[in-house]
Amino acid sequence: MLINCVAYQEGRKLCDIPIEEISEYVKHPDCFVWVALRDAEPAELAVMQHEFGLHELAVEDARVGHQRPKIEEYGDSLFAVVHTVELVDGELNVGEVDVFVGENYVLSARNRSQQGFLGVRARCEHEPHLLKQGSAFVLYALMDNIVDRYFPIVDALEVELEKIEERIFEADSPRANMKHLYGLKHQLMVMRHAVEPLIEAIHKLYGGRVPPVCQGTQEYFRDVYDHLLRVSQQLDGLRDMVITALSVNLSMITLAENEVTKRLAAYAALVAVPTMIAGIYGMNFKHMPELDWTLGYPLSIAAMAAIDAYLFVKFRRTGWL
Amino acid sequence: MLINCVAYQEGRKLCDIPIEEISEYVKHPDCFVWVALRDAEPAELAVMQHEFGLHELAVEDARVGHQRPKIEEYGDSLFAVVHTVELVDGELNVGEVDVFVGENYVLSARNRSQQGFLGVRARCEHEPHLLKQGSAFVLYALMDNIVDRYFPIVDALEVELEKIEERIFEADSPRANMKHLYGLKHQLMVMRHAVEPLIEAIHKLYGGRVPPVCQGTQEYFRDVYDHLLRVSQQLDGLRDMVITALSVNLSMITLAENEVTKRLAAYAALVAVPTMIAGIYGMNFKHMPELDWTLGYPLSIAAMAAIDAYLFVKFRRTGWL
Amino acid sequence: MLINCVAYQEGRKLCDIPIEEISEYVKHPDCFVWVALRDAEPAELAVMQHEFGLHELAVEDARVGHQRPKIEEYGDSLFAVVHTVELVDGELNVGEVDVFVGENYVLSARNRSQQGFLGVRARCEHEPHLLKQGSAFVLYALMDNIVDRYFPIVDALEVELEKIEERIFEADSPRANMKHLYGLKHQLMVMRHAVEPLIEAIHKLYGGRVPPVCQGTQEYFRDVYDHLLRVSQQLDGLRDMVITALSVNLSMITLAENEVTKRLAAYAALVAVPTMIAGIYGMNFKHMPELDWTLGYPLSIAAMAAIDAYLFVKFRRTGWL
Amino acid sequence: MLINCVAYQEGRKLCDIPIEEISEYVKHPDCFVWVALRDAEPAELAVMQHEFGLHELAVEDARVGHQRPKIEEYGDSLFAVVHTVELVDGELNVGEVDVFVGENYVLSARNRSQQGFLGVRARCEHEPHLLKQGSAFVLYALMDNIVDRYFPIVDALEVELEKIEERIFEADSPRANMKHLYGLKHQLMVMRHAVEPLIEAIHKLYGGRVPPVCQGTQEYFRDVYDHLLRVSQQLDGLRDMVITALSVNLSMITLAENEVTKRLAAYAALVAVPTMIAGIYGMNFKHMPELDWTLGYPLSIAAMAAIDAYLFVKFRRTGWL
Amino acid sequence: MLINCVAYQEGRKLCDIPIEEISEYVKHPDCFVWVALRDAEPAELAVMQHEFGLHELAVEDARVGHQRPKIEEYGDSLFAVVHTVELVDGELNVGEVDVFVGENYVLSARNRSQQGFLGVRARCEHEPHLLKQGSAFVLYALMDNIVDRYFPIVDALEVELEKIEERIFEADSPRANMKHLYGLKHQLMVMRHAVEPLIEAIHKLYGGRVPPVCQGTQEYFRDVYDHLLRVSQQLDGLRDMVITALSVNLSMITLAENEVTKRLAAYAALVAVPTMIAGIYGMNFKHMPELDWTLGYPLSIAAMAAIDAYLFVKFRRTGWL
Repeated sequence: MLINCVAYQEGRKLCDIPIEEISEYVKHPDCFVWVALRDAEPAELAVMQHEFGLHELAVEDARVGHQRPKIEEYGDSLFAVVHTVELVDGELNVGEVDVFVGENYVLSARNRSQQGFLGVRARCEHEPHLLKQGSAFVLYALMDNIVDRYFPIVDALEVELEKIEERIFEADSPRANMKHLYGLKHQLMVMRHAVEPLIEAIHKLYGGRVPPVCQGTQEYFRDVYDHLLRVSQQLDGLRDMVITALSVNLSMITLAENEVTKRLAAYAALVAVPTMIAGIYGMNFKHMPELDWTLGYPLSIAAMAAIDAYLFVKFRRTGWL
Repeated sequence: MLINCVAYQEGRKLCDIPIEEISEYVKHPDCFVWVALRDAEPAELAVMQHEFGLHELAVEDARVGHQRPKIEEYGDSLFAVVHTVELVDGELNVGEVDVFVGENYVLSARNRSQQGFLGVRARCEHEPHLLKQGSAFVLYALMDNIVDRYFPIVDALEVELEKIEERIFEADSPRANMKHLYGLKHQLMVMRHAVEPLIEAIHKLYGGRVPPVCQGTQEYFRDVYDHLLRVSQQLDGLRDMVITALSVNLSMITLAENEVTKRLAAYAALVAVPTMIAGIYGMNFKHMPELDWTLGYPLSIAAMAAIDAYLFVKFRRTGWL
Repeated sequence: MLINCVAYQEGRKLCDIPIEEISEYVKHPDCFVWVALRDAEPAELAVMQHEFGLHELAVEDARVGHQRPKIEEYGDSLFAVVHTVELVDGELNVGEVDVFVGENYVLSARNRSQQGFLGVRARCEHEPHLLKQGSAFVLYALMDNIVDRYFPIVDALEVELEKIEERIFEADSPRANMKHLYGLKHQLMVMRHAVEPLIEAIHKLYGGRVPPVCQGTQEYFRDVYDHLLRVSQQLDGLRDMVITALSVNLSMITLAENEVTKRLAAYAALVAVPTMIAGIYGMNFKHMPELDWTLGYPLSIAAMAAIDAYLFVKFRRTGWL
Repeated sequence: MLINCVAYQEGRKLCDIPIEEISEYVKHPDCFVWVALRDAEPAELAVMQHEFGLHELAVEDARVGHQRPKIEEYGDSLFAVVHTVELVDGELNVGEVDVFVGENYVLSARNRSQQGFLGVRARCEHEPHLLKQGSAFVLYALMDNIVDRYFPIVDALEVELEKIEERIFEADSPRANMKHLYGLKHQLMVMRHAVEPLIEAIHKLYGGRVPPVCQGTQEYFRDVYDHLLRVSQQLDGLRDMVITALSVNLSMITLAENEVTKRLAAYAALVAVPTMIAGIYGMNFKHMPELDWTLGYPLSIAAMAAIDAYLFVKFRRTGWL
Repeated sequence: MLINCVAYQEGRKLCDIPIEEISEYVKHPDCFVWVALRDAEPAELAVMQHEFGLHELAVEDARVGHQRPKIEEYGDSLFAVVHTVELVDGELNVGEVDVFVGENYVLSARNRSQQGFLGVRARCEHEPHLLKQGSAFVLYALMDNIVDRYFPIVDALEVELEKIEERIFEADSPRANMKHLYGLKHQLMVMRHAVEPLIEAIHKLYGGRVPPVCQGTQEYFRDVYDHLLRVSQQLDGLRDMVITALSVNLSMITLAENEVTKRLAAYAALVAVPTMIAGIYGMNFKHMPELDWTLGYPLSIAAMAAIDAYLFVKFRRTGWL
């Protein structure tokens, strides 16, 4: 589905143009065309391939989807795949944005994602002194926008972990904690799969041999790179703490078992000792003087109660009860 | 066993040729010969070595088999070893394809694998504009085909893990879960041994100094490389989750023990308390007024029942029963 | 908030200057201006950006804050982000110092930190032969000061670990140990996030292509680098030991369980055996000679006591009690 | 102990020569001398050092022994240390082969190893077209032979692991499994110490700057390198599985404990319930109608039996028995 | 404290010289001065700094101490920090040797270490043909001596581990084993902190761009490097086994618990079954024929004994007792 198709000159919007005129505008050296697609059909991609002269393998990647984040050079043009991540009902929803960048065009095709980029376009059009740097700046603006949306998600995962940590140390619902930690670990993996390959890819846009189309905008891509490193560092830290939390949870479970065993032992003692005493006075010896005492029965009961009271206090003190 | 032996010119099939004419056709600069063997005998390999002038060490590797995936240069020719992986009755079956590539020949020898490459040949013959890029394109087409067949296997392993995860959190059959997780870990290792060395090897076909025979087809090999990275990333993620699942399973087992202990303690209490009461009324004191009551017996039984009912409710509430 | 704004010439303080004259002094080739801000407002940063001609992206990073430690080149100037770490009530408080360094200016903006740098300025002014090396030396002095403050914190964490270790091996309060170890692991992660990126960044100031502004002061930055490596090594060691301590703690908990179980079993035996004997003499057989003995009752009690005494000694010896 | 001392010309054996003539033959540019020592005495090494002009440090390494696998250049000559590994009575026996290689000599000194290299010499002498490549080919042949003997050992370790795996999942002898896994881990470490350093060392004989004496035989060393990578990969895989097996074994032990606890609880119930009933009918109430029934006793016994039978069936069904 | 101050010419000792003449001798191109200090005072270092013209930062490092092992270039001179390790009463004592090396001087300052280097000096003076290579050879001799003293320590740690292993598999004193393993892990960390940074540092003295003062002695430093790699490999292996041993110890503890539980259950059964029988014959039913038998009592006791004997044998066979 076509969202926008606009020509720009000197960083200012010229006009919306029909698709078939794209190849006209692309010829002007001081113009560039910025097209945005959403969940594009193969047919739409085929048209774009023809208008912009895109490379077959890149278009096939965009058609098939489910690529790793990457940035590939095809001659003078770039093909970038970036993952969008949204947190929907506690689940991570991973979308994909494919961006084709040439000297004077940008084609972005967004898939399986609710996030739009109209805000990016608006911001770019309000800053013509930046936008006139051309298509590479648009690529930067798109990436910067996507990467900046990673932060609140990582923060949400961090909050989630803090909640679980609290429950772990209160020995509360260890089974659920384990399930949540496992789920969290999975989500961190999804995030990392979005972030790590992109770090490597974007590095090539500002260090070493920079693709011609990105010459002069290196500092912008270094900025995105730096943000990605920050996300990555947070993810690594979270991952490390999740693993530790899993092992702490196991320790807490074992510890809880210790305490159950102790309590069980204490209560068993409280029952067993009177039973033993009752057993003794249930013996059938002829000569058991206590049995004939008038107060024998109440005294025996009192003895049982006294011993239990003593044991109870002792167990309390040693923390078994 | 010889499967095919075909000469191509300008990307179009010329004709099936007998083995002994191979060396004739190989001399034509605009021709190339594509031979496919299956579970080749040493004698067949010896003939091929003679016809194509293959290097001794490469032929020995193909004869012995069980090589790591690799791509080696011998002068102007390449020798590639790629592992095929098939999922047969839940077991991974690893085969091996050895490909010898020269300026104008391709010899593929497939071993211990059910997968054929007739489809690859058919696809190539239908796209002469691609096939005319020569033997390197055939190498690409073979590799691409093998690598693409990795994806459904990794997906199957992923589904397998999800099934086990479910059973783990339902605390269902922990012993079987462990066995399956162990088996899964082993299969991931097998897959990784097929994938990781190939990533490294294929990198050399498109980056840095590219072997002469692959000049001009780098973008195709980069595409295979990218697919392999995707498989590798999935495998790494799976491996990480399997390890976590193993540790979660241990925690669930320990947790189950806690619960057994608690339940055991609760039931023990339900029996021990009446036993204690019965013991008390089994004492032989002369003066035990309750014993003379007409309702003494039913009251004592009622007391036992009442206490047990109270305990039962209490245990239920604290989750011990 | 402006803390200082001073012009220096030949390593000696010239005078405090008003902000609006900065751009004057910056023009003198033999002068440099050193400005210190604290929790700067956006407006203040805007003024500084104008006076020093700072790069937009660097100023935005300083405005937004919460950057990773890093050192970036913008043309001839440097932008450095360093984390300050303070230990306040057992919690790590992470602040941030942003330093802009040009040929003849240094602007440091400190955020969320109690640590001041007046001492650094005083030390520099007392050593004009060093300060005359210019703005790079000021950057060194600031970094050196911040990094040197890492050591007491790492030492404090080390002491903390030693305390926990002791408690672990005394099997004392395993739950609290676990909580402290977890907290310690988290603090190590915070420290590492301050240290690791800085190591990588500072390496570029003395090895390989050194930024022009740091030419001639490489040995100083190597010194800071070396200190950071020391901190990093200590952190790595601590982290490794914390992980081991967590696992040892689990083992100690399991071991404690063993001992509880053994003690429980021993006490149970001490009660169960007399109960069994009492049960035997509570049987109603007609012909039980012992029952008619005058000393039957005391003898049976004595037997119970003797057996328990025997068991008690035996349990003590095998360490069950 | 001297094993052999032979001069070769053009790949063909010239004659056995006495040690003192070595320095004569070494002067001929088209000759090379191949000497084999076994558990050489310092005096023998001193003679060799003099005859071949070996470097002091290399000779000292050979004299002291217990070196890491390595390949060092001393001027135009090479000094290689390779570990031999033999499986003797289930124990790994590590020997050492020191090889000095010059333009026209090879000196191999084997220590603490039963493996001889007469087979290597015989094979070389049967292939003069290969042997005429000179001393580097002999180095290759020795290394290839040693490395090829690693495979059956790794396979034996793999078989060992499979046996232990089986016993683990049958919950058979967990203590012995642990001991075997620990021992296996140790053996893998020994193997890895033989293999890993050699990989790194041998890489330098075919990639990058190749030592002059190995020019023209790179493809042979790449072959050895490739075999080593295969061994290394197998070792890594084994190591990974051993670690997992250790953790699975722990889980199986914990699981076994669960089952013991359950069974214990079930049997305890089978005894405790009749005891309770007996206790009730042992009470001394005046008015207990059942006690007067003629069938009271058999009925009570029947009730006990019936309850136990019911419990037994129930426990069986839930898997506690 | 000054230990020695000697001038050498052509590898031969010239004479002991007073400190104030050092700067004289240093001017002779064919002389070099070798000074050894022990636990030097700041004042002594200041004198040396003046005599040799040492760099401020290097001297400060030596004064402050507690540096990482490192080798730094200051212009034409080197500053090396190496850790000495001694095993005193089972504790590792880490000392520090700071070595300043210039074209014609060596200054070694040893701190917190009992190890002297008189032996090194003696050995050097006995081999003038080596010593005449100058100050770099002295640096080598010192390093070689320190590094060679690492080996017996690592061997001692290995022996320690073997002792603990034995106790683990005999399930002997698991608490002490854990403590020793933890301590061992800590000692390995200390050793590693001495070894790892030095490996990296020393690599620069023989590979790539070698500092001018070390030209011609690369092979000696490669030898030290190689020894360090050997130590490092041993340390890595030990560390790996310690971690495994810790986890095996946990498994052994869990296993011991299993056995305690089983034994406990068995003994409980031996007591509970007679108690139940006694309870049955303690019931007050009017019609219990056994009670009237003359042999009732001995028969019941016999039955109890018989059942216990049967159970005892059965438990023995299944290994519960």
